[in-house]
Amino acid sequence: MKTLHQYERNEWVIPGAEPAGSWVDTDISAEITFGGKTKKVKGFYAGNETWKVRFYPEVAGMYRVKITGANIVPQEFEAECLPAAEGEHGIVRADGTHFRYADGTWFYPFGTTVYAISHQNETLTEHTFATLAENPFNKIRMCFFPKHYDYNHNEPPYYAFVRKADAAEAPEGYTQKDPAQWDVHHPDVRMWDRIEAHIERLGGMGIQSDLILFHAYDRWGFSQLPIEDALVYLDYLTRRLSAFPNLWWSLANEYDIVFRYGKEDWERIAQFLHDHDPYGHLLSNHQMIHEWDYANENTTHISTQTSDLDHLNRKIRTFGKPLSVDECRYEGNLPMHWGNISGFEMVHRFWTVVTQGGYCTHGETYLNEEEIIWWAKGGKLIGESPARIAFLKGIVEELPGPLTYCGRDRTKEEFETMRKTVPAAALEGNGFMKLILGSPYEEAMVLLLSEPVACCGEEAYLKYMGRNRAASAVLDLPKEGSYQIEVIDVWEMTRTIVQTGVSGSVNVQLPSKEGIAILATRVSVSEKR
Amino acid sequence: MKTLHQYERNEWVIPGAEPAGSWVDTDISAEITFGGKTKKVKGFYAGNETWKVRFYPEVAGMYRVKITGANIVPQEFEAECLPAAEGEHGIVRADGTHFRYADGTWFYPFGTTVYAISHQNETLTEHTFATLAENPFNKIRMCFFPKHYDYNHNEPPYYAFVRKADAAEAPEGYTQKDPAQWDVHHPDVRMWDRIEAHIERLGGMGIQSDLILFHAYDRWGFSQLPIEDALVYLDYLTRRLSAFPNLWWSLANEYDIVFRYGKEDWERIAQFLHDHDPYGHLLSNHQMIHEWDYANENTTHISTQTSDLDHLNRKIRTFGKPLSVDECRYEGNLPMHWGNISGFEMVHRFWTVVTQGGYCTHGETYLNEEEIIWWAKGGKLIGESPARIAFLKGIVEELPGPLTYCGRDRTKEEFETMRKTVPAAALEGNGFMKLILGSPYEEAMVLLLSEPVACCGEEAYLKYMGRNRAASAVLDLPKEGSYQIEVIDVWEMTRTIVQTGVSGSVNVQLPSKEGIAILATRVSVSEKR
Repeated sequence: MKTLHQYERNEWVIPGAEPAGSWVDTDISAEITFGGKTKKVKGFYAGNETWKVRFYPEVAGMYRVKITGANIVPQEFEAECLPAAEGEHGIVRADGTHFRYADGTWFYPFGTTVYAISHQNETLTEHTFATLAENPFNKIRMCFFPKHYDYNHNEPPYYAFVRKADAAEAPEGYTQKDPAQWDVHHPDVRMWDRIEAHIERLGGMGIQSDLILFHAYDRWGFSQLPIEDALVYLDYLTRRLSAFPNLWWSLANEYDIVFRYGKEDWERIAQFLHDHDPYGHLLSNHQMIHEWDYANENTTHISTQTSDLDHLNRKIRTFGKPLSVDECRYEGNLPMHWGNISGFEMVHRFWTVVTQGGYCTHGETYLNEEEIIWWAKGGKLIGESPARIAFLKGIVEELPGPLTYCGRDRTKEEFETMRKTVPAAALEGNGFMKLILGSPYEEAMVLLLSEPVACCGEEAYLKYMGRNRAASAVLDLPKEGSYQIEVIDVWEMTRTIVQTGVSGSVNVQLPSKEGIAILATRVSVSEKR
Repeated sequence: MKTLHQYERNEWVIPGAEPAGSWVDTDISAEITFGGKTKKVKGFYAGNETWKVRFYPEVAGMYRVKITGANIVPQEFEAECLPAAEGEHGIVRADGTHFRYADGTWFYPFGTTVYAISHQNETLTEHTFATLAENPFNKIRMCFFPKHYDYNHNEPPYYAFVRKADAAEAPEGYTQKDPAQWDVHHPDVRMWDRIEAHIERLGGMGIQSDLILFHAYDRWGFSQLPIEDALVYLDYLTRRLSAFPNLWWSLANEYDIVFRYGKEDWERIAQFLHDHDPYGHLLSNHQMIHEWDYANENTTHISTQTSDLDHLNRKIRTFGKPLSVDECRYEGNLPMHWGNISGFEMVHRFWTVVTQGGYCTHGETYLNEEEIIWWAKGGKLIGESPARIAFLKGIVEELPGPLTYCGRDRTKEEFETMRKTVPAAALEGNGFMKLILGSPYEEAMVLLLSEPVACCGEEAYLKYMGRNRAASAVLDLPKEGSYQIEVIDVWEMTRTIVQTGVSGSVNVQLPSKEGIAILATRVSVSEKR
């Protein structure tokens, strides 16, 4: 207990009487002093006459800890924080338009979606973790509350809160959407223990938990909590979960159909998390239609649902934050339009997003007799995209750093600047450029014919041809340096070196099929003259 | 000469001296009297001391004809117009949002593109016609002027006009874009005879000539004619060609990069054609980026270049005119993004357009050693889409009438009306509909999730699932009537009857793959009670 571990969730467990009133609004906390500065972190009542304080240290060294609380015996001690163990990188945060672990290692999310992973029986949960272990995904979108929707009708093993003693008799299966039945001041710790165990296990597998705090697919009333009750829930949540390194806050899945809360409520929720999470976990908000205001100061990255992937690079530059397409439809065959794209289309979407400097999230929705569908309950994956996503992930992780869009697409502001700065003389005899610069922005962008191409400085260029089946393509590389060119078949998962020692404008022969990418990597820097 | 043929181009050939000045601005004309009304049609000098007057009669019966002109012996005679021969349907015109021959037969365009068909050598031209004879296309986009562009560098056999006697020596291959060299008052009749022979031959094959009057891919100066010269060209053109039944006027290919002419010029050109074409041929204008104003009163239909096919149905209702996507990219493997879509994608685009009540045009751009590429020069087709386009054409032609969009997509005006007319009570407890009606138009449309589905009255419903791979879909049919349901695989070209005797809301099992359509056809009307 006196030894801490850098980049990990550390926990002090202290016996003490159950609170008389609220289990949430308690005074247990630790004052933690390091390097002359003192930080206060709140603890929580964990049930069974046990209190806990959790702490995530980002720096190794000697810490002084003072734990106090009405129901516990105060403690004060020194604790040595050991340097990070192999494989512990700390919390992932935004760094410019990309993600980085606390230790500086880049993190490239390749996520998947199992909304109700933590609300299934043990057998199914084990299947799900076994599947995750075999697959490339390093982030998972998962709901704190259970889910009620087509193919998702099971009761969860536990609920987040205890029902009020005076609550009306629950109709069978809690089919009444009644927020008043829940006593948010009395968490059902079995549910919290269980989801924490899942988050911890995910962490051990290198998977970030993108934890969805609210959603509308609900028959219990969790989507209808009055905002004051919601903040009580978030108070307990931040006390318990903030010290988990592999945690992201996703305010909602489709916040714009959680009608109980308006814009001010969501801003208040974001502010509350910012104020109560001592470690600054990533925070965003996912929409059905009306995109969240990613400029919001507590919002660290763009999390969006969209099938319109052509100009994501603009969004990244507009907000100057990393982008994750957290819903681009799912590979499967559901009757719903969002749940029946092909494996190829899913892979195509990943490549389209990644070659614009963004990140993408997978999901799978194949019908089966048991109605155990990955996107909601977990179980097994049968689709064709995961292997190809692993292939792409391997390529991205080989690069010396993250990919940033370097094609011709422009934001409106960038285009207006271009319009002002291109000299009139340059337009003489260049009717096409004249047409572009004389066109309204959107039309000019159509003319610019931007294809996804992203760079890692001058070290690597990755161009994705998408569904175009060109027999050849031109790659514009720096004139200095010597590059190796690979032609990549994103579906067949083949990489073929087609040219070496080239630079400048390079014409690359291609196999005239959909799903081809070109990777140019710098092999050596030529001597400057 | 005294017998005319309904729905055909009839021609009177009269010997007479060559005009001393302009070959275009001549006074030859015929006054044609029928049913108490007299119509004047202009003739033209056809070279070789021969004058011609052409006439297209739409009604059978006795006509009185009086032909006069300074260089000919005047003639006056009666002529009997015989009823239309088998297979002659007359000029195609717009009827609401569809196309119809003069005799009332519906015309469903399934076009292709061979821009420079009339500017190749005889051998190649014969290959092209042989290919057309084997393929389903019943409209062809073809340029009056020769084409200069990548893979299109050959000189045409003839030019439209004679070079001026005092023109500067032509640089080799006419690489100078010099409009001043052309004497528009002296057509080179060899070129006109040749393109007419092509149009006539196409007519005999049931193919409409969508004749492109201007385009920018030019090294000779034809795209740079001063507007007054352009009108001289169009004067001769309308005198010669208007009597061809299978002719459409396409003002331009990509008018917005024919920089010589501004909006007023294009309007003037449209007005000129309207005034000088006695028969009211279809007329439109095709763009690169800035769509033509299809509301223009002389514009009979929408001709557009676009890859954004999701909401074409709106455009059709907005203008109340038929729509032809005359460029949706080409099946092939050129390096250019517009010339390398797959055969499947081309077929997918045809289905997407047709199930919105529109029409689509094919083109093929496979590289080959001879650089004879269908889209420009003709030759042979090697792609996978034509057979599937024939399959779709067969299905459409089997229906009792044209297909009109009947899905949930709405124009802005239609949506605003919907917003005003949905009673508040209907929104109570319907949060989703509330979100839709409370959303800005574009976002509401995303929520409405419109899929292409078109109807032929209540006789037939054709729904296209596109790239969605649903395992089932719901088709909402009228409660009256008895329908047969077919599942169509647009690529494999199979039609499978899966249900008969159904009506109302029908759930149809589907094979979970891309490119599936559902056709419901009414078999019998149930007895009204």
